[in-house]
Amino acid sequence: MREDYIVNTEERELDFVNVFELEQEAASCIPKSGYDYIRGGAGDEWTLRQNIAAFNNKGLAPHVLSGVTDPDTRMSLFGVDLTAPIVMPPIAGHGLAHGKREAATTEGVKNFGTMMSLSSYASTSFEDALNGKTDPYFFQLYMSKDDEKNKEIMDEAIENGAKALILTADATTNGNREADIHNGFTYPFGMPIVERYLEGTGEGQSLTAIYAQSKQRIDAKDVDFMASYSGLPVIVKGIQRPEDALKAIGAGASGVWVSNHGGRQLDGGPASIDMLPDISRAVEKKVPILFDSGIRRGHHIFKAIASGADVVGIGRPVLYGLAMGGAKGVESVLSYFKRELEMVMQLAGAETVEDIKNTTLVNHIPHV
Amino acid sequence: MREDYIVNTEERELDFVNVFELEQEAASCIPKSGYDYIRGGAGDEWTLRQNIAAFNNKGLAPHVLSGVTDPDTRMSLFGVDLTAPIVMPPIAGHGLAHGKREAATTEGVKNFGTMMSLSSYASTSFEDALNGKTDPYFFQLYMSKDDEKNKEIMDEAIENGAKALILTADATTNGNREADIHNGFTYPFGMPIVERYLEGTGEGQSLTAIYAQSKQRIDAKDVDFMASYSGLPVIVKGIQRPEDALKAIGAGASGVWVSNHGGRQLDGGPASIDMLPDISRAVEKKVPILFDSGIRRGHHIFKAIASGADVVGIGRPVLYGLAMGGAKGVESVLSYFKRELEMVMQLAGAETVEDIKNTTLVNHIPHV
Amino acid sequence: MREDYIVNTEERELDFVNVFELEQEAASCIPKSGYDYIRGGAGDEWTLRQNIAAFNNKGLAPHVLSGVTDPDTRMSLFGVDLTAPIVMPPIAGHGLAHGKREAATTEGVKNFGTMMSLSSYASTSFEDALNGKTDPYFFQLYMSKDDEKNKEIMDEAIENGAKALILTADATTNGNREADIHNGFTYPFGMPIVERYLEGTGEGQSLTAIYAQSKQRIDAKDVDFMASYSGLPVIVKGIQRPEDALKAIGAGASGVWVSNHGGRQLDGGPASIDMLPDISRAVEKKVPILFDSGIRRGHHIFKAIASGADVVGIGRPVLYGLAMGGAKGVESVLSYFKRELEMVMQLAGAETVEDIKNTTLVNHIPHV
Amino acid sequence: MREDYIVNTEERELDFVNVFELEQEAASCIPKSGYDYIRGGAGDEWTLRQNIAAFNNKGLAPHVLSGVTDPDTRMSLFGVDLTAPIVMPPIAGHGLAHGKREAATTEGVKNFGTMMSLSSYASTSFEDALNGKTDPYFFQLYMSKDDEKNKEIMDEAIENGAKALILTADATTNGNREADIHNGFTYPFGMPIVERYLEGTGEGQSLTAIYAQSKQRIDAKDVDFMASYSGLPVIVKGIQRPEDALKAIGAGASGVWVSNHGGRQLDGGPASIDMLPDISRAVEKKVPILFDSGIRRGHHIFKAIASGADVVGIGRPVLYGLAMGGAKGVESVLSYFKRELEMVMQLAGAETVEDIKNTTLVNHIPHV
Repeated sequence: MREDYIVNTEERELDFVNVFELEQEAASCIPKSGYDYIRGGAGDEWTLRQNIAAFNNKGLAPHVLSGVTDPDTRMSLFGVDLTAPIVMPPIAGHGLAHGKREAATTEGVKNFGTMMSLSSYASTSFEDALNGKTDPYFFQLYMSKDDEKNKEIMDEAIENGAKALILTADATTNGNREADIHNGFTYPFGMPIVERYLEGTGEGQSLTAIYAQSKQRIDAKDVDFMASYSGLPVIVKGIQRPEDALKAIGAGASGVWVSNHGGRQLDGGPASIDMLPDISRAVEKKVPILFDSGIRRGHHIFKAIASGADVVGIGRPVLYGLAMGGAKGVESVLSYFKRELEMVMQLAGAETVEDIKNTTLVNHIPHV
Repeated sequence: MREDYIVNTEERELDFVNVFELEQEAASCIPKSGYDYIRGGAGDEWTLRQNIAAFNNKGLAPHVLSGVTDPDTRMSLFGVDLTAPIVMPPIAGHGLAHGKREAATTEGVKNFGTMMSLSSYASTSFEDALNGKTDPYFFQLYMSKDDEKNKEIMDEAIENGAKALILTADATTNGNREADIHNGFTYPFGMPIVERYLEGTGEGQSLTAIYAQSKQRIDAKDVDFMASYSGLPVIVKGIQRPEDALKAIGAGASGVWVSNHGGRQLDGGPASIDMLPDISRAVEKKVPILFDSGIRRGHHIFKAIASGADVVGIGRPVLYGLAMGGAKGVESVLSYFKRELEMVMQLAGAETVEDIKNTTLVNHIPHV
Repeated sequence: MREDYIVNTEERELDFVNVFELEQEAASCIPKSGYDYIRGGAGDEWTLRQNIAAFNNKGLAPHVLSGVTDPDTRMSLFGVDLTAPIVMPPIAGHGLAHGKREAATTEGVKNFGTMMSLSSYASTSFEDALNGKTDPYFFQLYMSKDDEKNKEIMDEAIENGAKALILTADATTNGNREADIHNGFTYPFGMPIVERYLEGTGEGQSLTAIYAQSKQRIDAKDVDFMASYSGLPVIVKGIQRPEDALKAIGAGASGVWVSNHGGRQLDGGPASIDMLPDISRAVEKKVPILFDSGIRRGHHIFKAIASGADVVGIGRPVLYGLAMGGAKGVESVLSYFKRELEMVMQLAGAETVEDIKNTTLVNHIPHV
Repeated sequence: MREDYIVNTEERELDFVNVFELEQEAASCIPKSGYDYIRGGAGDEWTLRQNIAAFNNKGLAPHVLSGVTDPDTRMSLFGVDLTAPIVMPPIAGHGLAHGKREAATTEGVKNFGTMMSLSSYASTSFEDALNGKTDPYFFQLYMSKDDEKNKEIMDEAIENGAKALILTADATTNGNREADIHNGFTYPFGMPIVERYLEGTGEGQSLTAIYAQSKQRIDAKDVDFMASYSGLPVIVKGIQRPEDALKAIGAGASGVWVSNHGGRQLDGGPASIDMLPDISRAVEKKVPILFDSGIRRGHHIFKAIASGADVVGIGRPVLYGLAMGGAKGVESVLSYFKRELEMVMQLAGAETVEDIKNTTLVNHIPHV
C-alpha cells in the first residue's frame, strides 16, 4: 500500500438521512483520488445521472386499502436465503475505502444477511476477504488471457465455497473515466487474486493497464467454459439488451445481471432501468435477473423489482458506508435500504417481494 | 405545549400576491421545525414538486365569445352548500402554526363558507376545534388498533355534528420526511382526540411514533366498519389508482379523495393530477371525487375540476394563512383562491362549476 | 400625465443585435412600473415563457438547392399591401413608452410599410394617434356596456378610415399580472377614446378597474353587431381553440387572430403557436389568420406562417423600440424583423410568403 | 494580416481529457474575435446546443459477449483509404487559429491518415494549403456569380489533385452570428482562392459581405455544372431533408453531406443527428453520406454511423487543436477521437465500421 494513500480503519454504526448526504460525508473521509474513482462515471457522466433520474419517471402510485402491516423483504437466490432483495455487487479494490478492505465488507454483508460478491480485482486474497469462512458469496471473474490461470482462480473460488460465478461482460476495456485521468489514478495496492496473471501486483497501475492485461475477447464460449469447468451457476453481468440476455442463457448462464456498470463504462447509453422491462420480457423467468446501476432509494429497489428484477445490487453507497464505518458501516447502509424498502412496501401496499413483482408502474414524462 | 415552540397569536387579514410569496413570508413567522414539517415532503420531494409542475402541462386554452360575465363558484357536497369548490383538508396539529390552533381554522373556513375537515391528530379537542358549534365539518380518522376506541372517537365526531368521515388510506406508516429527521421534529403538544389510544398525550413524540400507535392494517373492511357504525358517508382519502377507487366504493365509500398526501408519504410517485383523469373515468360519477396535492393557483383548481374532481382541498397555503393571521388569515387565503378561480373562469369562459367540468384540457409537453 | 412618470421623447434609429438585448436596454429607458407592465405576463409567466420557447420545438430544417436569392416578404391583408407579413397589434397606452405616444408608433409603422392597430385604450385620441391622416389602420374595440357608446366609437373609427375592426375576446377581465400588483400600477394618463364610458379619464386607474368598466359579457352577437353596424371587416382576437375560430366566423368575423394576449391574461395555457395548426386546419382558409404571442425572432415569423398564419403581430419589441427611439425606433424594430425573416427565407429556401406556407416543420422533443 | 490579430505559431502535441476542456483552453489561446467566430452559432445558439445534446437521446446500449478485442476503424471514401471514419470538414480561415494556417491542418490531417477538405474561403492559396503536395483532399467551392471564375477555381482544384468537390448549399447568406456582430468581426487576412471574385482580398471584410459577393442562387443546376465541368465527384453539403438529398443525387451528386453547418446558419432548426435517419433511409446507400454538426465524443461518431452516416466531419475541436499545437495539435485531436471511437466500439461490441452500421440505437426521452 502506498504510504500517501491513507484510509479510515474505524468500525462504527452510521446514522445518516439519505445516501446523497452520505456521499457528501464520504468525500471528506476517502482520499480524493479514491473518492473520485468510486463516485465517478465515464465521459460526461450522462448515463450515471440518467441511471438515477430515470427512476423518477417510473411512477409508483400506491395501492391503498391493501391490508399490509408488516412487509416481508425476504427472498432466496440460487438456494440461499436473503434478508432482502439486495446483494453486494462485485467491486474492485475495497482497500480504497477502508483499512480492513473486503474483509469488512464481507462481515457487514453477512451480518446484514445477504450475499457478498467478491471481485477478482479485490485488494485482498480469498482467505482475507472471506475471513476464513465460507459465508455465502459469489465470485466475479475478470478473465486472464490464459485459461489455465482462469482455472486456477476458479479452483480457488470453489474451494472457498462460492455459490456462483459472475462473468463481467461490459468491461472489456476501461471507460473514459475522466476524473481518474485528471488525478492520474493508480491502485495504491496490489490485487492478490489476479496477481498471478498481472505483471507485478497491480499496485501503481491504472485500471486501464489492468484491464489490458485481462482478457478482452469475451464471448459466449467463455460462459460455457466457466460453467462447464466450475459446475457452478454462472451469472453474466453487464446485460443491456434483450438479445444479449438470451445469448447468455443460450450459452449456459444461470442468471443475467442487468447493469451498465453504474455508468462507469460506456457513457451515452440509456439508464439501466430503462432497458430492464424489455430484457425481463425476453428472459421469461427462465433465470433470475439481478439488477444494478442507480439504486439510491427504497423506491428504486421497488421499481427495479416491479420492472422485472429479482434482486438488486447496491455499490457506491455501500462503499461509502465501508469507508466511514467498516463492517458496521456496510451493515448500516444495507439496513438503511431495507428500512426504506419496507416503508415503500407498506405505503405502496406490497406485503412481499412477490407483491412488488405484481405491481404495475406508471410511465410518465417529467414536468419541468 | 413546549416552551421553546412559540407561535403567532395575531388575527389579521392578509394581503399577498401569490401563495409562493406567502410561503416565503410564513417561513419567518413559524418556528423552523414546524415550518419545515408543514412545507416538506418525502424523500427527494420529487413528487411534491411534480404535483405543482404537472398543472402547467394540462394546458387550459380559453373559450372566448362565451358570454360569461359573473362566474358562479358555488356548489354543494354531501348536501352542504359551499361558496366555492374548495374544502379544508384534514391536517394534523394546527397548533404548529397558530396559537388558536384548529379553532381559528374552523372559524376562518366557516366565514369563508366552506367545509372544515378535522384531523384526528388535531392539536385540540372536538369542542375547542369546533368552537362549541356544529359548523359543517368532516372528521378524519386515523384508526386505533382497538375498534372500541374507534367507536368512541366516531361517537364523539357524530355528537359534534360531523357530515362525513374521512378514512386516510395512504398513511399507514410515515413517509421519509427528511427535514423532520434533520430537525428531530416532535409534536410540541398533545393530540386530545387520539390521546385515548396513545401512550402519553403525543407531546414530544415524532410522527413516526404516532403512526406506529395507530392502525397500520387498513383495508376495505375498515371502510365498511366506519360506514356501518357511524351511518355517515365515508370518504376514502389517498386514492391514486382507478382500481382502488372502485375497491373503496365497493366497500361502501360515499366519496373518494384523490391525493398523494401532498407528496408527504411515498416519494417517486406520479403527480396526483396525472392520476385523476383515469380515476374519474373509473368512478363514472357514482360518488363525488375530492382532490388535493399541488393546488397553488386558480387555474390548478379549474384544471383539477376539468379533470374529474368535484372539489379540491388546499392544505399548506391555508396553514400559512393561519400562521400569519389566524382565522382572518385562513379566510384571506381561501378568498384569494376563490378570486383566482373566478378570474380563470371568466377568462376561460366557464360560468359555473358545471361548465368547468365540461372544459377539455390540452395535454402538452413542456418546452425548455 | 402624472408628473412622476417621465418618458423618453427622443427620435432615433436603433442599432441592436436581438430583441432580448433590446428588452434589457429598454428596462433602463422606461419607468419601472411601465416597463414591468409592458414586459410582464400573468401569474407565474409560464405561458409567456412557453410562447417563446415553443418555437424551438417547431424544427425548421432548411430546403437547400432551392435557387432562392432575393426573398420577397410582401403580401396583402384585407386589400392593403404590406411590406412584410408583420402588423402592429393593438396595445393599450403607448404613452407608457414614449412622449409622442401612439402618434410615433403610427408614423413608424407607416414608414415601415405595414398596418397599425389602434387600441381603444390608446393614450391619445384618434386624431392624435393617426397624425390627422388616414393611414391604413385597424381599430380595436374594448366595448362599452352601452351599445350607443360603442356606436359612437365605431363611428369615429370609420370616419378616421379604419380598414377593419378588432374585437378582443380574451380580455373580459384582467389577468393576474403580479408585477402590476406589486408596483400598484395605474395609468399615468387618460384614455381619450374610451373616456366617454369611463368614470373619469382613466388616469390613475388600474387596468383591472378599467376592464371592469368595459363590457365583460362578450359573445357571438357582439361580432354580428360590430360587423352589421360598421360594415367593416371584424377580426376576433384571442382565439385559442378551433371551435372558437369557427364560432367567430359563423358570427360574421372576417378574420381570426390567434393569440393568448402574449401570456398576459390566462396563465397556465398552452403556447399560442402550439394551438395554431389545429385552428388553421379548422379555418380552412375561409378567412385570414392573424397570429401573435411569442414572436422574437425571424424564424418565429416563418414558423407561425408555416403553421397556418397569414400575418403576425409583434407587440412588446415594437414598444421597446418606441420607448427608445420614437417613430424611428418603431421602424428600426420592424425592419430588424423583416431582415431576420429575409435571412431565414433565404437560408430555408423560401422565396415568397406563399413558399413559407408550403414549408413543413419538424416537430421534435427538445434535448436537455 | 492585421497587426492586432496575433495567433500562436507553436507546434506541439496536445494532452487533454475531452474537447470541452480543450475549448476552454483554446479560449485563452485564440484572439477573442477569432475564438468567438469559431465557437459561435447563429441566433440563440439553440441549434448549436441541440446538435450536441441530441446524441444523448440516441441511447447506445452495448452488445456484450461479442468477442471484440481489437476494433478496426478503417474505411474508405471515394476510393481513398482512411484510418478512421473521420474527415476534416471545410472551414474558412484557419489563419484565425494558427500562424501556419491551412498548411498545418493539412499536415496534421495527413499524418493522422484521413481526408482534408479545403475551403474556398481558406486563408491561403492551394499551394500553401497543400504544402505543394497532392495529399488526398476535397475542395469546397463557394461559387462566384460568374461561372468563368468558378471554372478557373475548379481548374486549380483539379490541378492540385482534389478527389472530390464539395458544394455548400446551406450558406447562401450569412446566419445571424451575434457574437460576430458584437465584436465587429472582419477577417484579418485575405482569401487567396476567392480573391479573384471579391472586391479586394477579403481582408477587413465581414463574412456577411463576403457571402454577398458569392453566388446566392444555388440550385440543382449548380451540382450538374460542377460535376460536368470537373469530372470529379460532387458532394452537396448542408442537407437536412430527405427530399433534398434525393434532389442532389438526381442532379448528379456523388455524395450528400448531412449538416446544419454546426448551428452557424439557420438557428431554430432540429439537431442534425435527428434528421439523419430519415435522410439515410431516403438515400438507400446510393451514395455515401457524410455527416457533421455536434460531434464532440467517440459515442457521437458511433451514433452518427449507426444512424446512417458513412463518415463524420469534426470542425471546431480540430480548429482548437490547430490553434494550440499546429499540425501536431490537429493530429492530437483527430487521434483523440479515434481512441474514443475505439473504446466505444470495444465496449459496444462492434469490431468494424460495418458492425457500427448494424447497431440499433435506443431512442429515449431524457430524464430530468
